[in-house]
Amino acid sequence: MFKIIFISIFFFFSSFLFCQSSIVEEDFRKIYKIALTEGKTYEWLEHLSNQIGGRLSGSFNAQRSIEWAKEELESLELDSIWLQPVMVPKWVRGTFEYASIESSPGNTISVPVCALGGSVATPSSGISANVIEVNDFDELKELGKKKVQGKVVFFNRPMSPDLINTFESYSQAVNQRFNGAEEAAKLGARAVIVRSLNLKLDDFPHTGSMSYGNLKLRERIPAAAISTNGAELLSSMLSLNSNLKFFLKQNCKNYPDVLSYNVIGEIRGSEDPDEIILVGAHLDSWDLGDGAHDDGAGIVQSMEVLRIFKKLKYKPKKTVRIVFFINEENGLRGALAYANQVKKINEKHLFALESDAGGFTPRGFSFDCMDEDFQKIISWKKYFEPYMVDYFVRGGSGADIKPLKNNKVVLAGLRPDSQRYFEYHHSDNDTFEAINKRELELGAAAMTALIYLVDTFGF
Amino acid sequence: MFKIIFISIFFFFSSFLFCQSSIVEEDFRKIYKIALTEGKTYEWLEHLSNQIGGRLSGSFNAQRSIEWAKEELESLELDSIWLQPVMVPKWVRGTFEYASIESSPGNTISVPVCALGGSVATPSSGISANVIEVNDFDELKELGKKKVQGKVVFFNRPMSPDLINTFESYSQAVNQRFNGAEEAAKLGARAVIVRSLNLKLDDFPHTGSMSYGNLKLRERIPAAAISTNGAELLSSMLSLNSNLKFFLKQNCKNYPDVLSYNVIGEIRGSEDPDEIILVGAHLDSWDLGDGAHDDGAGIVQSMEVLRIFKKLKYKPKKTVRIVFFINEENGLRGALAYANQVKKINEKHLFALESDAGGFTPRGFSFDCMDEDFQKIISWKKYFEPYMVDYFVRGGSGADIKPLKNNKVVLAGLRPDSQRYFEYHHSDNDTFEAINKRELELGAAAMTALIYLVDTFGF
Repeated sequence: MFKIIFISIFFFFSSFLFCQSSIVEEDFRKIYKIALTEGKTYEWLEHLSNQIGGRLSGSFNAQRSIEWAKEELESLELDSIWLQPVMVPKWVRGTFEYASIESSPGNTISVPVCALGGSVATPSSGISANVIEVNDFDELKELGKKKVQGKVVFFNRPMSPDLINTFESYSQAVNQRFNGAEEAAKLGARAVIVRSLNLKLDDFPHTGSMSYGNLKLRERIPAAAISTNGAELLSSMLSLNSNLKFFLKQNCKNYPDVLSYNVIGEIRGSEDPDEIILVGAHLDSWDLGDGAHDDGAGIVQSMEVLRIFKKLKYKPKKTVRIVFFINEENGLRGALAYANQVKKINEKHLFALESDAGGFTPRGFSFDCMDEDFQKIISWKKYFEPYMVDYFVRGGSGADIKPLKNNKVVLAGLRPDSQRYFEYHHSDNDTFEAINKRELELGAAAMTALIYLVDTFGF
Repeated sequence: MFKIIFISIFFFFSSFLFCQSSIVEEDFRKIYKIALTEGKTYEWLEHLSNQIGGRLSGSFNAQRSIEWAKEELESLELDSIWLQPVMVPKWVRGTFEYASIESSPGNTISVPVCALGGSVATPSSGISANVIEVNDFDELKELGKKKVQGKVVFFNRPMSPDLINTFESYSQAVNQRFNGAEEAAKLGARAVIVRSLNLKLDDFPHTGSMSYGNLKLRERIPAAAISTNGAELLSSMLSLNSNLKFFLKQNCKNYPDVLSYNVIGEIRGSEDPDEIILVGAHLDSWDLGDGAHDDGAGIVQSMEVLRIFKKLKYKPKKTVRIVFFINEENGLRGALAYANQVKKINEKHLFALESDAGGFTPRGFSFDCMDEDFQKIISWKKYFEPYMVDYFVRGGSGADIKPLKNNKVVLAGLRPDSQRYFEYHHSDNDTFEAINKRELELGAAAMTALIYLVDTFGF
């Protein structure tokens, strides 16, 4: 008798699980079909990239992008949409940036540079000084004040080409850009030039954030990125003539903070409206290029998640909230303001997913969460295998959602193929033309599928 | 006592396996380091693409590519290098190809077309006829001779956008191109126009092979591909005016077969020289573009496998042979000649790997082999995981190595990301500029690693 009951229970559960699996598989098919045959990401991104363009925090374009994003969310007929006020830094590139190498008086060659975000200007007549090339801060400190004083410090450590994940190479090299000016200024340097964080040898300088730490205003020195080809040239010329002079002129400027906004919308949960599943990206970009990969792609993919739910008439059990964070690039103010508000009103975030690694073919997701949650997530991997997006790893999620971290929320980041990303990142190259429609759509589909699973099975 | 012996044996084997694993891991690191920091694929491909260019079988450029390939293999100091003579078809695109849609007399709009490889010319004054649009052969046959006779048949079935592997979409659509002219000619059509096999809407027509089956010379009708945008336009105009006329003019031509060659080289095995591990690709390409993805990438990746072995001073136990097949695109003569020779002299091929799916980020390999061999291969997957090239599936390998199939040899194909491939394939777009250096190098590294494992562990 027991045996019969046992067998019956076994078959009941097996068929239940089988049935559940096939429902999920069918829903995945529907999600992918919409994304790939009637997707809207590419059209949205074309507008954001070409009709709005680069949208650095505090700029007119950033405000235009906020208004556009709000309008687009309104067209999705969400249950509520609002703007969260945030004060953001305002830095302006100015009207010129120029550099040249003078190997002997009058014998100059110009090299492509761009000011780093937050840098001060040079004097209006520019800076001309000898160059000292270093690979890292240890090397710089070893040289000491005597050898650095009055010089242009040239940080030339390349991103490592032999790491498979290019974000790791980036992490290993980015301190030159972020802290280089501070470290060099402490030793009396007049300016810093940083090799662009780009694995390719080309002529595009790549900007990015930097900090002067606790340096007083008068101690700050100008900082610029030089293209990888420019860096190779400078290094090679230095090896022949260590007395050459580097000329730099830029008139960028910092202004007082200005008012800006996170753009937020949500579909209210039909069963557990107080449990929030967040999907998002950052709306601001650098002023070079039009921010198509960083992070226009993430913005339109996040919107697509909600659009597909609406299209499928899928009513989430939990609240699915979309957040377009402002000021990820040079301050993270939007992310911090959002996390503070969440803490203040004690909102329960179950899950947060960010797409901020480019619009390339998605390979999987990284998860920042507790062990038992990751075990559950791993059990979902099978659904993603047919879509070739089953690279599931523990790791960082995204800069904007990281401030939400506690011991409950599951944070996740879309992981697209990373090989080409740093060829575009923070440069004139990051334009809509560098986006592949299918790859962008596959990312949106994978994100929708993951949010759907979280809503269906929870944690 | 038995227990002690058992434990000792267990530890002996465990440490042996552990040690073996770490040797493999270390060798993988070395292979990847060379490929990514001092690789030669990109430089080689630049030459093949830009200094030689498109190299259709039987053309002057095909001969130039054969000579170049032989010279490059010579510079690798292999144990032997030879040319295998093969007679190949010779088809020439001619001096013009032109098409237009005439919606009313004198009211014409030109559309981008290109002759399909092997097609006959139109009469010198061109062909002008009404158009009948169909999706497949069933639809065509249903229309019957009465409705098809005297018309231009327009095959307009798009590649399915909702399949993840774009090669599957290609397989589902390619019969229109390959057999379309034959099927339409049987019903009295005057010409066929085939929608380009491209998932993107753009203005580039994509050529490719076709066959007239058993049709007599005088029964053959001209066949051309129309760009995807052109196909959409034609279809949309037809929906408004089914009486419009399509004008096609092309002067391509078939010539008698000419002598060409497979280019072959090898490093003789130090232990089992009679066991052959083949790595290869096809040297010929279409005449549009410069064949950088199809299949220049595979050529230079194959060469890189041997170059890395030489660089590492790795002496393979078995013979590692490189084969550059001629005439994959329109005849497969090189592949057939090679397989015939293998059979004739009873050579033992253990393994054959082809790269012919583009130079994009490698995702893994497909294997055409017996179950027990696949089990062994699956046990190697762990080594590829850190390199994100661990998508191992059963499936087709490559057109050139398929004729080697028997119940012993293991056939394998590199599987790069397929999302962008058909945007370039067989069109003016397939140029060196569409190649990403890192992605190309990662493919070469993965291939080298796999060949190394086969040589080390055999089957």
